[in-house]
Amino acid sequence: MVVKIYGTGTAVCSQRVMHCLVELGVEFELVEVNLEKMEHKKPEYMAKQPFGQVPYIVDGDFELFESRAIVRYYGAKYVGKGPNLLGRTLEEKARVDQWLDAEAINYNPLVFPIVFNLFVLPRSGVPGNKAEAEAAVEKLDKVLEIYERQLSKTKYLAGNEFTLADLTHIPATRYLVENCNMDHLITGKKHVKAWWEDITSRPAWKKTMSFVESRVSHFYP
Amino acid sequence: MVVKIYGTGTAVCSQRVMHCLVELGVEFELVEVNLEKMEHKKPEYMAKQPFGQVPYIVDGDFELFESRAIVRYYGAKYVGKGPNLLGRTLEEKARVDQWLDAEAINYNPLVFPIVFNLFVLPRSGVPGNKAEAEAAVEKLDKVLEIYERQLSKTKYLAGNEFTLADLTHIPATRYLVENCNMDHLITGKKHVKAWWEDITSRPAWKKTMSFVESRVSHFYP
Repeated sequence: MVVKIYGTGTAVCSQRVMHCLVELGVEFELVEVNLEKMEHKKPEYMAKQPFGQVPYIVDGDFELFESRAIVRYYGAKYVGKGPNLLGRTLEEKARVDQWLDAEAINYNPLVFPIVFNLFVLPRSGVPGNKAEAEAAVEKLDKVLEIYERQLSKTKYLAGNEFTLADLTHIPATRYLVENCNMDHLITGKKHVKAWWEDITSRPAWKKTMSFVESRVSHFYP
Repeated sequence: MVVKIYGTGTAVCSQRVMHCLVELGVEFELVEVNLEKMEHKKPEYMAKQPFGQVPYIVDGDFELFESRAIVRYYGAKYVGKGPNLLGRTLEEKARVDQWLDAEAINYNPLVFPIVFNLFVLPRSGVPGNKAEAEAAVEKLDKVLEIYERQLSKTKYLAGNEFTLADLTHIPATRYLVENCNMDHLITGKKHVKAWWEDITSRPAWKKTMSFVESRVSHFYP
């Protein structure tokens, strides 16, 4: 039975899950949830995802929400099928968890207000809060300095293999780089730039983006 | 060799790690990092924890930061030693991850501004931002309604056993209940109240609190 992803192709968290499944060679169906029509806040949706966020998945009789929990689940379920996305030893796995948490706690909460204020709101004709975006840019630049030091020691965040720790960063950073004129945050740092070029040139990510473009009429760019 | 926790007894994230180790019966030493003296922002500290946050752990030649990654690591390393904190099947583990992420992403970012503005700042003689706290209280109450529905179906968040999904909620919620006059958020909901009474009556949590009180002269209450 094909994994069903209830989400939307343009949403960062849906892209994270799709990319993971493409890496692992797991077939899926994207069941589009229309955020503009607030379908994610309707009772039938919130019975499955109580926080009213996208995505959640249905895999046979198993259901799960929270994108980072979903990618952890598939990384473990299909270990050996594609690249090892979780690490092998307990210590390697812990380092992947460490950078997954850094992404969720220290990185994404800064990228979000930038993308929201400089891209999502203006695209809808609503002026974004530029001061809020600028404050976040300043903090994010410091976080990326930390990443620069880490990536000068290891090729990927959690070691010398591509893992979920890297994968989770890609979708939001793509909006930052391609839709917010913030590519200098990445390209101005030698090791971050090399890492970004490496992880976004992965065939599975390119395939995910092609899928999104083919499905979504208003996909940017 | 005893696990060393570099942190401070009053900090939520340090308490999370200590509680986990007490549950598992793993001996540790708390190496106090003085936040008032900004020791967590000094270069020698940030060489170990680059974000300048507490705690990080040293276990032989292995070092790790991010409290939720640390508790995941010890839950896996000492599986069978104490209670099973991770779940057993892939699906049980995924549900634990789901609620761990809900805590990190949907719960803690609301509890933090309440505790910060109503307790941490006033305790230092600085007036907190009450409007910011009130806005967070309103949102947190809605999140706790989601918890109420979940806990009407399962005794604990991820199922019928106590896991890391519950454990990670305790330290910040204790500040909310005991230091911010916000106990009504918990006690006003039947299943959340029963859950809270159950998880805070665990001997390992009581032992953790006794340890903190014995070590920290300014522990509240």
